Amino acid sequence: MGPVRREQIVRATIRCLAREGYTRLTMKKVAREAGVSQGILHYYFADKRTMLAATLEAVTRDLDRRVAAAQSRTGRDPRARLRALVRACLEVAVRRPEFWVVFVEFWGEMLHDRRLRELNTAVYSRTRRLIGRLIADGARTGRFRPVDPARGAAVVLGLVDGLSLQLTFDPDAFGVAEAARFCDDALGRYLAKETP
Amino acid sequence: MGPVRREQIVRATIRCLAREGYTRLTMKKVAREAGVSQGILHYYFADKRTMLAATLEAVTRDLDRRVAAAQSRTGRDPRARLRALVRACLEVAVRRPEFWVVFVEFWGEMLHDRRLRELNTAVYSRTRRLIGRLIADGARTGRFRPVDPARGAAVVLGLVDGLSLQLTFDPDAFGVAEAARFCDDALGRYLAKETP
Repeated sequence: MGPVRREQIVRATIRCLAREGYTRLTMKKVAREAGVSQGILHYYFADKRTMLAATLEAVTRDLDRRVAAAQSRTGRDPRARLRALVRACLEVAVRRPEFWVVFVEFWGEMLHDRRLRELNTAVYSRTRRLIGRLIADGARTGRFRPVDPARGAAVVLGLVDGLSLQLTFDPDAFGVAEAARFCDDALGRYLAKETP
Repeated sequence: MGPVRREQIVRATIRCLAREGYTRLTMKKVAREAGVSQGILHYYFADKRTMLAATLEAVTRDLDRRVAAAQSRTGRDPRARLRALVRACLEVAVRRPEFWVVFVEFWGEMLHDRRLRELNTAVYSRTRRLIGRLIADGARTGRFRPVDPARGAAVVLGLVDGLSLQLTFDPDAFGVAEAARFCDDALGRYLAKETP
């Protein structure tokens, strides 16, 4: 029952965060939302911060699974894999707005907490490495121009994060399909092989 | 004395936010930091949220001034003006980290507050319009390919926001000069005229 109950508490924490934010989050509210006693809750999580860290890990894992699932349908072409990654990430901003609540609430706390910051650094470094591998694949197979993988990954991740923020905060400005199209266009041109 | 004292309170609020975050912000701490009585503070600001809104307006105005100052030194070439904008924004992420604390803390609160969200929407819409005008200028004078100004602005703003996040959260990954270079490279290729 351990992992199931832990997962149930983490999902309840995400719902509480989405509803009221980290400022108003209490262990008591999460226990009620998860349908467990406060004793059980404290068995799994020492405090609010530990719970916040667990929500970041949960939404990051979920996002990774979505990207992997989308890429598994595209075959091996690096351009198609990059498009699938962009699309899966931007869709999360619209379909699972509570994920972006977790990111933003986590960032707010992490600015004042070294350990949370280290966790975020680990997530970003790993994400840039994954994207960097895709860029290197594309360069090796002649689909992309040769770009330094770490820099290219910072550009891809930056654009996807920045457009996700705009989709989250201002959903009337443009839709997710449109955002995916102009993101693909921008990244396609960025990575396109130079005309000889 | 009115505007001066108000400005002094807003700057004190930004310092308190940077030090402890919005969760731990109190009117009492801000009054002490600003060196005013709580009565004076309440004369200018009804509550924490009004103060948070004022900090967003203040850092946005400051950022606009930095961009305008940087662009005033480049002349009229749209490419140089875009480079100046990118550089000024990314530098703020490194030199004035408290500005990004304000953005992130504001976003966290705004997810649970309609009026704060409207303020953010207004700031983003205005920023996209300004960048859109620069893109339209570039297309008209033949420096950029014809890009829909609103979409192009979303891409530029998205990339600058996303890279600023990475500079803020993970300052060891790359420096501001390097970020400015690969951001210019990506936007230059995105807006470059197609080879006939």
